[in-house]
Amino acid sequence: MIKKLFAEFFGTFWLVFGGCGSAIFASQIASASNGQLGILLLGVSLAFGLTVLTMAYAVGHISGGHFNPAVSVGLLAGGRFSAKDLVPYVAAQCVGAIAAAGALYTILSGSGTPDFSGPGAFATNFYGEAVYFGKSYSMSAAFLTEFLLTAFFLIIILGATDKFANGKFAGIAIGLGLTLIHLISIPITNTSVNPARSLSQAVFVGGNAMSQLWLFWVAPILGGIAGGLIYRFLLQRNGMEELDS
Amino acid sequence: MIKKLFAEFFGTFWLVFGGCGSAIFASQIASASNGQLGILLLGVSLAFGLTVLTMAYAVGHISGGHFNPAVSVGLLAGGRFSAKDLVPYVAAQCVGAIAAAGALYTILSGSGTPDFSGPGAFATNFYGEAVYFGKSYSMSAAFLTEFLLTAFFLIIILGATDKFANGKFAGIAIGLGLTLIHLISIPITNTSVNPARSLSQAVFVGGNAMSQLWLFWVAPILGGIAGGLIYRFLLQRNGMEELDS
Amino acid sequence: MIKKLFAEFFGTFWLVFGGCGSAIFASQIASASNGQLGILLLGVSLAFGLTVLTMAYAVGHISGGHFNPAVSVGLLAGGRFSAKDLVPYVAAQCVGAIAAAGALYTILSGSGTPDFSGPGAFATNFYGEAVYFGKSYSMSAAFLTEFLLTAFFLIIILGATDKFANGKFAGIAIGLGLTLIHLISIPITNTSVNPARSLSQAVFVGGNAMSQLWLFWVAPILGGIAGGLIYRFLLQRNGMEELDS
Amino acid sequence: MIKKLFAEFFGTFWLVFGGCGSAIFASQIASASNGQLGILLLGVSLAFGLTVLTMAYAVGHISGGHFNPAVSVGLLAGGRFSAKDLVPYVAAQCVGAIAAAGALYTILSGSGTPDFSGPGAFATNFYGEAVYFGKSYSMSAAFLTEFLLTAFFLIIILGATDKFANGKFAGIAIGLGLTLIHLISIPITNTSVNPARSLSQAVFVGGNAMSQLWLFWVAPILGGIAGGLIYRFLLQRNGMEELDS
Repeated sequence: MIKKLFAEFFGTFWLVFGGCGSAIFASQIASASNGQLGILLLGVSLAFGLTVLTMAYAVGHISGGHFNPAVSVGLLAGGRFSAKDLVPYVAAQCVGAIAAAGALYTILSGSGTPDFSGPGAFATNFYGEAVYFGKSYSMSAAFLTEFLLTAFFLIIILGATDKFANGKFAGIAIGLGLTLIHLISIPITNTSVNPARSLSQAVFVGGNAMSQLWLFWVAPILGGIAGGLIYRFLLQRNGMEELDS
Repeated sequence: MIKKLFAEFFGTFWLVFGGCGSAIFASQIASASNGQLGILLLGVSLAFGLTVLTMAYAVGHISGGHFNPAVSVGLLAGGRFSAKDLVPYVAAQCVGAIAAAGALYTILSGSGTPDFSGPGAFATNFYGEAVYFGKSYSMSAAFLTEFLLTAFFLIIILGATDKFANGKFAGIAIGLGLTLIHLISIPITNTSVNPARSLSQAVFVGGNAMSQLWLFWVAPILGGIAGGLIYRFLLQRNGMEELDS
Repeated sequence: MIKKLFAEFFGTFWLVFGGCGSAIFASQIASASNGQLGILLLGVSLAFGLTVLTMAYAVGHISGGHFNPAVSVGLLAGGRFSAKDLVPYVAAQCVGAIAAAGALYTILSGSGTPDFSGPGAFATNFYGEAVYFGKSYSMSAAFLTEFLLTAFFLIIILGATDKFANGKFAGIAIGLGLTLIHLISIPITNTSVNPARSLSQAVFVGGNAMSQLWLFWVAPILGGIAGGLIYRFLLQRNGMEELDS
Repeated sequence: MIKKLFAEFFGTFWLVFGGCGSAIFASQIASASNGQLGILLLGVSLAFGLTVLTMAYAVGHISGGHFNPAVSVGLLAGGRFSAKDLVPYVAAQCVGAIAAAGALYTILSGSGTPDFSGPGAFATNFYGEAVYFGKSYSMSAAFLTEFLLTAFFLIIILGATDKFANGKFAGIAIGLGLTLIHLISIPITNTSVNPARSLSQAVFVGGNAMSQLWLFWVAPILGGIAGGLIYRFLLQRNGMEELDS
């Protein structure tokens, strides 16, 4: 069990360090000549997905590779995870995420002009604030977005690891699924679908990031449960019935 | 059969929610300092492909993972799908696509400044209109583009799932094939190759998106049939003849 | 044999239609608000690679998936291809490439403002011309670039399909290898490493694209031979000697 | 053994030629109309990763595919590499890297306006200099970044090649892991995590690139050792204990 918790710790550390780190350090870079040189929200989306893809293949065989409380809860709802392991897994994930945010805080503080304030700064999640494109989305739009995306994330996870699926490709499908989720929703909420990732950034910034944190626990966890139940009861075959040719 | 239809419903929902959603919410984002921060048409192309890649591994083992009426028809032409399943599959795809467009409509309405008008808005397909780069393409150029791309999409699908192919990689080849198709043709038609995806966006926008909808049913379906026949009669081996070493 | 040639025809058609097509239609797109919205040279690089990745899984099991005269020659040098098949393969590749360029010509002509002139237009290859960034590269720099890149392309191809390699991943390694090659060299020569692709675009444009065409046959073919010989004599194990644990 | 060293030579050549080459030639390109047309730091990140992905499948079955002194040392610390092979491997890597930098130098010199000076020019690594975004990071921030990223790189490598892992996917996980590392840290140090890559660029530029070179040997090697020890003692199972279901 201790190795599983280490796997969740390092995996969630990597998710926050790589995903939030790429957003903080590299998303916007002015080029010498003209225009944007940074990795854009596209690169940030790719980074989040690659943290999960890489750790799924690296330590997924140890802990299952959740790295996300909403995933652990959703797997429980889907009948693939044991209730007795839930609290230690979530604890390891939150500790790993906060440790990573601390490392990001230290590195960013090593630059001349760290920026930890303003909506969305330090890669915090938000709603109802015009962070990108001068456009804000309401709390209910943010809630619906986080709920739906986490539900589909769990459908992808449960489906790609189904005994009838090509399970060896699950790390690719799940990791790139997280990339896809970010491609859709960074401008809406900076994309959470992961309560540990929201918590870790809010801890270091406080303010609105902390007062809005509830949504990034409630919506992803409810979405995860919905996804788990949808896959379990509407999609999953029991193995004896109709088999595709 | 009901689980197959649920799989097509959720898969096509995801295709529209992720593909069109990334285009609507994230393609263009002004950065704080200078230049574009959004995911560009490149990110939208990636998103469409990843919806199919993720769902192919998640529910492809349930329904075959069509998520597209032109694919279902093309597989029928290619001898890999049963005519009796065609109508229910296409119905599930259209319902899933429209449900996703409804969710996108709800979320976008939760922003202060939703935009549902103008050519290409809400990720609708079009022809003969100067949506991108001040350049428009004629109806016949749009038709040829949609026809050719859907034909090759079916060649990829039939080839990658051939019994002589490395079938486990089909989800990657097909998903990234859809990314490639978008990389070529978003500026021409916003890229359909999928009648359900065109229908769902047109339903909520009306106007030109609805009056031009015929092309995005006819061209992809004819292209799908052409691709199915090309693979079946020009490329597919019967298994007894010349085997590569 | 006829199915092999059809596979090479359709595969090379797709390489030119997708790779050059994405460059022609989608690389530069002005956004409504500000900055670039197109797929950039990054998206073009991805597109070229994905044409090969998709067709490698789709028809690679039929013809081996060369789609490139320099690859066919390099595989011959590497001892993996039969001399008697060389001419028909190269012919099928060139015909497929030219057919794709014709389709691109037709579609682009369906826009109000087709552009077929100027260095690099219609995705032609070039050297000694300041197409990108106001910077030009000399003929010898262009030759060295094309030579080296094609040599490494063959090392990747021969290595990834080696009997000791995880051959099922070869389509991914080879396709993304072509993406990588484009990421390096589009600003230098628009990237050929494929004589058929250079021929097809030059045929429709003429002028410098035709008078410089020799380099994009000679350098890739010599590079392909070099790569084939390097892999065969410096890297390939004979199977009886030292096996890694 | 000689074939292993050739594999390390060509692999590291490719890493430097492709990764640094894409940065030098293609990261910043002014478009004809407006805005950036180049591959951005996102494309450079992808290029570095693809050099490793392609060579891992091409020659990984020959030498193990290190291409990086910090990886060789880290694998030694992790108990997966033999001390007697360390010096020849590192020598082959450094020679390959320098040869690639020489080829890049030759090609860039074939342009009218080569740029070999200024911080970060010729893709050199740096710290404490405001290369990107007008923001500089302190020596200790740079050290921490290189240390942490190399440690996680080794965790990914050791985990993905663990006997309990899906080892055939290791090339994808490791290659895209290097992409992820670059997505995070190019603006901080231009990203090393590879002493051979830092050496090769510094050799041709001198100045600060040479005087700061120590950090890009010490931090990655210490990070590699840390990652090797973490995986070996905190994560790796001994095969007899708790097996996941």
